[in-house]
Amino acid sequence: MPELPVLDYDAVLTAVTPTVAIDRVREALVRYHAGEWTMPPKVYLDSPPFGDFRAMPARGDGLALVKWITSFPGNPARGLPTVTGVICVSDATTGEPLMLLDARSVTALRTGAVATVAAQALARERARTVGIIGCGLHGAWVARCLAAAGYGPGVCNDPRIDAAQALASELDWDRGSREQALRCEVVCCVTPGAELVVDAGDLRPGLHLNMLGADGPGKAEASVAAVASCVLFCDEWEQASHGGELTPAVSAGLVSRDQVTELGAVLAREARGRPTPEAVTMFDSTGLAVQDLAVASAALDEWRRGGVKAQTVTL
Amino acid sequence: MPELPVLDYDAVLTAVTPTVAIDRVREALVRYHAGEWTMPPKVYLDSPPFGDFRAMPARGDGLALVKWITSFPGNPARGLPTVTGVICVSDATTGEPLMLLDARSVTALRTGAVATVAAQALARERARTVGIIGCGLHGAWVARCLAAAGYGPGVCNDPRIDAAQALASELDWDRGSREQALRCEVVCCVTPGAELVVDAGDLRPGLHLNMLGADGPGKAEASVAAVASCVLFCDEWEQASHGGELTPAVSAGLVSRDQVTELGAVLAREARGRPTPEAVTMFDSTGLAVQDLAVASAALDEWRRGGVKAQTVTL
Repeated sequence: MPELPVLDYDAVLTAVTPTVAIDRVREALVRYHAGEWTMPPKVYLDSPPFGDFRAMPARGDGLALVKWITSFPGNPARGLPTVTGVICVSDATTGEPLMLLDARSVTALRTGAVATVAAQALARERARTVGIIGCGLHGAWVARCLAAAGYGPGVCNDPRIDAAQALASELDWDRGSREQALRCEVVCCVTPGAELVVDAGDLRPGLHLNMLGADGPGKAEASVAAVASCVLFCDEWEQASHGGELTPAVSAGLVSRDQVTELGAVLAREARGRPTPEAVTMFDSTGLAVQDLAVASAALDEWRRGGVKAQTVTL
Repeated sequence: MPELPVLDYDAVLTAVTPTVAIDRVREALVRYHAGEWTMPPKVYLDSPPFGDFRAMPARGDGLALVKWITSFPGNPARGLPTVTGVICVSDATTGEPLMLLDARSVTALRTGAVATVAAQALARERARTVGIIGCGLHGAWVARCLAAAGYGPGVCNDPRIDAAQALASELDWDRGSREQALRCEVVCCVTPGAELVVDAGDLRPGLHLNMLGADGPGKAEASVAAVASCVLFCDEWEQASHGGELTPAVSAGLVSRDQVTELGAVLAREARGRPTPEAVTMFDSTGLAVQDLAVASAALDEWRRGGVKAQTVTL
């Protein structure tokens, strides 16, 4: 068995810049839409009362991957990260493992990347200001990716004032209230999904919303009325309608399949994006394994060309 | 992030003896039957025309695991193993990864272990002789585990004469024809499942058959007539009826749910095993993630008590 390179948290973020992640995730969504990249539904393994594990496989461009990742909402109170895990990237033609990567950094980076891809495709053309509601790890990488793509300045909001201030200072943005964040042109909700942070009254003409927090059953960041008032987009209909921000509105019969467009179809120019400058657009991001494959594949390329050092193990 | 121990192929087999694997796998089947260990269905990710990947999660005794494993039948012709992969064991209360293990060795060991558990529970009480049809990696570990539990001597059969002879020599058993192997009291079929090796005419009174090769759609080692003639057992009904040895007989309407007993129920003494000494019993092993968890958990215990050395990485 040959040596297997292993990239830790820092090595992943050294290997893949936000700009590369954004380009790779956009390309992955187009390839998935075209049927060239494939992905069975993610599998949940509950671990009550603590949280859940997810196994997320995907295949594309001669690689196959599984991400084994957690969501343990009570962990921060114990001084532990909410999200931890491992990715294994394998050769799709021989099955052999090619690389192991920290899953936490890949997840944060691809979440930031897809928020940026959605903003570029769906927000008003001249939209620049960014509201970040929820400044944890994922919120920070959403802000960093948007900043890398030229968005900003922004307003960072979080009940943990230190977290909001640290992110605002890093990007030379402002810390502010939820209401101030909601007045920006691109608003990204990146909370744990335990409380609503957007209601119908918060929607202003021309707003684009990225909903990134609700990635499983029982989580929501926007009221059903707010969701039903928007022009709707998602990463993948099955996940979004069963375990995403759209789920309560779909269950209530207020939103049906034909009212929701997958982002990949917009990127492939097979579906319309924003209909008018005044429309309020909402993108429901539930997180796809093909996005993880996009970032992991970029990391593997960078390691192969010598741009990042890896630990090694043998199996 | 703390250091993560990594066990390679040899370290897994150093950490967990066949005897320990047999005891742990038996216990896991009882715990799974009781609902204390849980497991969603395994997920297949096809990689045509080469093979497939499987993501297999399970949880029990404070641990959670995913196995990312391949079946690439054309690999041996390219000098590569059919089965490769990685297991990540995590803490079920915090979600944090605790250990990475080579999946090939764990799979071979738990396959041998479950074959032995089934023979102990279902074969005639004084059955000792073993026929091994298919002497690849899994066949070899089936033979080794049965030998460790006191079974033997046996007959090793394989179209690759060298493989059959090597295994026979290792255990001081004999190499022989398929017919000779089928005359033993416990017959284990461990072929790739591409050709039938057991027909109804091969069944003799008192025989116990372990069917270990057919673990996915389109694979079979016994004819439908042979299957329908046996008293039937399986590791898990859903897998066995959809992607196991029983599948063609179930599809043909010859076998229904109430004719098949799960091995865990027999081990828990909630269902009858062998009905009479003359009955022909057949156990369909499709491979369960809880069996992998049993072996991985034993390896983690052994590492924690200093019985095996691990490589380390940080994530």
